[in-house]
Amino acid sequence: MVLRLTLEYDGNNYSGWQLQPRHDSIQGRIEAALERIFAAPVRVFGSGRTDAGVHARGQVASISIPRPFDPAELQRALNSILPNDIVILDISIAPDGFDPRRAARARVYEYRVLNRKIASAFEYRYSWLVRDQLDLDAMNRAARIFVGEHDFAAFRSLGTDVTTTVRRVILSEWSRDADVLLYRVEANSFLRHMVRAMVAAMVDVGRGKLTPEKLATILEGLDRHAAPANAPPGGLYLVEVRY
Amino acid sequence: MVLRLTLEYDGNNYSGWQLQPRHDSIQGRIEAALERIFAAPVRVFGSGRTDAGVHARGQVASISIPRPFDPAELQRALNSILPNDIVILDISIAPDGFDPRRAARARVYEYRVLNRKIASAFEYRYSWLVRDQLDLDAMNRAARIFVGEHDFAAFRSLGTDVTTTVRRVILSEWSRDADVLLYRVEANSFLRHMVRAMVAAMVDVGRGKLTPEKLATILEGLDRHAAPANAPPGGLYLVEVRY
Repeated sequence: MVLRLTLEYDGNNYSGWQLQPRHDSIQGRIEAALERIFAAPVRVFGSGRTDAGVHARGQVASISIPRPFDPAELQRALNSILPNDIVILDISIAPDGFDPRRAARARVYEYRVLNRKIASAFEYRYSWLVRDQLDLDAMNRAARIFVGEHDFAAFRSLGTDVTTTVRRVILSEWSRDADVLLYRVEANSFLRHMVRAMVAAMVDVGRGKLTPEKLATILEGLDRHAAPANAPPGGLYLVEVRY
Repeated sequence: MVLRLTLEYDGNNYSGWQLQPRHDSIQGRIEAALERIFAAPVRVFGSGRTDAGVHARGQVASISIPRPFDPAELQRALNSILPNDIVILDISIAPDGFDPRRAARARVYEYRVLNRKIASAFEYRYSWLVRDQLDLDAMNRAARIFVGEHDFAAFRSLGTDVTTTVRRVILSEWSRDADVLLYRVEANSFLRHMVRAMVAAMVDVGRGKLTPEKLATILEGLDRHAAPANAPPGGLYLVEVRY
């Protein structure tokens, strides 16, 4: 019996989604909770990794359970064992062989920038504080450059092996809610650190340190060193995986 | 030179506003930061205490500094020393003898209730999760009962000595934002635990366990034991002190 889990987590207390020896991971916590319920090891397969400090509002994972169990009852059991910062939002029966990574048509991420002079006691782990005044129109002109199929080699993590750095961005836009600038981006899939590198470049455009035209040249140049360093992880949220 | 500080804090990591031996308090953290800056002890006087786990978006405090210091520079120095969950929002010069507790005309608190079936990985320390369906209209009928001058003896903390339990409530109302029910209450001053006791009673009205009429009888009865136990501290915010 294969189940599909939708979950949210606050990434602040974890070394990321992915199970790692001697590190506290979200995957590890869920596998430990499942092992307590089934008294047998159960592997959890996610739609993709999220890094240390990155949050999720709609991560999707699959599990193959060793004996039948009512999904709603399993959800209650898991939520009562899991720490408060990991919550299973939904469990449903998945088709046999459901692979949440390969089956995903698209992923949606959001990134929160807090644009004000003074830090916030509530936002410091949930957004990136940028004190400089930002030009939202310029940032949206920059955001539109990413839409479509491009080689994102200039916006990847250099340490990662991938077969291709070409990705198709479906939506890329900024909006404002009081002093929070919210970036929403949807793509067929993402390279590691891609959103955080894109956000850092667009914030430089918002500051006037970079023009949208120069950003287009960086994208075409395929050179990671030409683009700014990553935006911090705390502002990033995996909000939806589409199937 | 007397200065007026406006500050916000996430109360989760502290035993409350008030300095206590062997406990980590917000007042204690600010006094320690001031002592580092001035190389002399500086007392901090708040507009009132907040309990362990209670937050503030607009607490007001006064300090009398041992030597002249530019307020904007002092704000930057304090914010660079203080932990991320305590932020000085503003510092201005106060009239001599300014007492933030006695001079306050009114205080405004907000209380957040998360009204949904499933817990939230992000809200668990910032709201009270109530899974039962709540009747917002009934809660607002209950909220209006508190408006005006009343003896709030039924909604106080029994361990506290006060000269009078009469308080004047100026505003008391609930609003909804998606699955968050937000209570806003303004009064000349508050008894200890008063807002949390009032919220618990109004949530019982929202659940249908208590009628607004019965709540009026509890208020008139002046008996703390007749009212429900306090709502949890994590949903409560001191948002403004009026002078």
